[in-house]
Amino acid sequence: MTKLKLTYFDFPGGRVEPARLALAIGGIEFEDYRFPFSEFADVRATTPLGQVPTLHVNDQQITQCNAINRYVAKLTDLYPKDDFQALVCDEVMDAVEDIMNKIVATFGMQGDELKSAREALVEGPLSKYLKWCASRLETQGGEFFADNRLTFVDLKLMVWVSSLNSGKLDHIPADLVARVAPSLNAHSQLVANTPAIVKYYA
Amino acid sequence: MTKLKLTYFDFPGGRVEPARLALAIGGIEFEDYRFPFSEFADVRATTPLGQVPTLHVNDQQITQCNAINRYVAKLTDLYPKDDFQALVCDEVMDAVEDIMNKIVATFGMQGDELKSAREALVEGPLSKYLKWCASRLETQGGEFFADNRLTFVDLKLMVWVSSLNSGKLDHIPADLVARVAPSLNAHSQLVANTPAIVKYYA
Repeated sequence: MTKLKLTYFDFPGGRVEPARLALAIGGIEFEDYRFPFSEFADVRATTPLGQVPTLHVNDQQITQCNAINRYVAKLTDLYPKDDFQALVCDEVMDAVEDIMNKIVATFGMQGDELKSAREALVEGPLSKYLKWCASRLETQGGEFFADNRLTFVDLKLMVWVSSLNSGKLDHIPADLVARVAPSLNAHSQLVANTPAIVKYYA
Repeated sequence: MTKLKLTYFDFPGGRVEPARLALAIGGIEFEDYRFPFSEFADVRATTPLGQVPTLHVNDQQITQCNAINRYVAKLTDLYPKDDFQALVCDEVMDAVEDIMNKIVATFGMQGDELKSAREALVEGPLSKYLKWCASRLETQGGEFFADNRLTFVDLKLMVWVSSLNSGKLDHIPADLVARVAPSLNAHSQLVANTPAIVKYYA
């Protein structure tokens, strides 16, 4: 049997949470290796490109978040088999990664620099990406992003929307999603009500 | 029949070149819409997230380069069916996108700012990613990146390595690949000798 080990920071959420959820939904055993932020320098030295998450598949350590996600999605039957539905799933997953990278680029900033960078994000790309995600959801039927059923991209959206709604990101208003892309909140609620996800967080 | 239209800048190379090559190899008809840099402002206003390439699949305009690439790879039988081989293919494709984004972030810089940014890239991430790609190639058998045959990731690597070797990127030495990851040059040569690719460039 394939041995899987996910390596990521020890907090509920972030880039690896959708993969944790998918593996829980699929009932697939894996080692959920979590380390504190204080150990990041040591851990990153053991990774292929200085980044987390990584996934060990047996003895091979794999990098790149959405590559890992797609593999996990296939293992857990959360990836569309239809080529066009897989394309939309990939497109939205990559777009979320893209905008998350723009947010991550503001980590480490402080004071006025952080404030103006975050406000520019909110007014510009962040609102743009949120609205685009909402329009993609609508084009795909309004309930799920791909394949007319829960797939990996829905998990990724839910985790991202939840972080935006948390109010923990300074200068990103906790009601931004509600204001510019309210259908994403309804979508997140639908996904969060999936029995396996309710059970995971219980 | 599905109608495909790729939209990208009018030059040989860049982010969309691997998809053009794949479609040529697969003998799949598509509209190769190329526009001059001077029209980018107008074109980007018609794209979902202000970025190119986009792919129209019939009437739907799709964004995100590697999502488009993966779809094209499936249409042209250049994507591994085995889950682990597909994971490695995705991992290297995303890593190349990652480092290309770091290079693109220096476009628009000038003079000393450009010089120091590019030199830092060469000394740091660029050499690191090149060496990592070479090690991945070796782990996978040394000839192709995935599936023991030509797949999409090989096209992506060849186009990227060719741009690094071109000497057209100021302060990125044209012999960098030869110095830090020579096996990638041998790999590129192998891929470039594929009859369908020779024919495409003839």
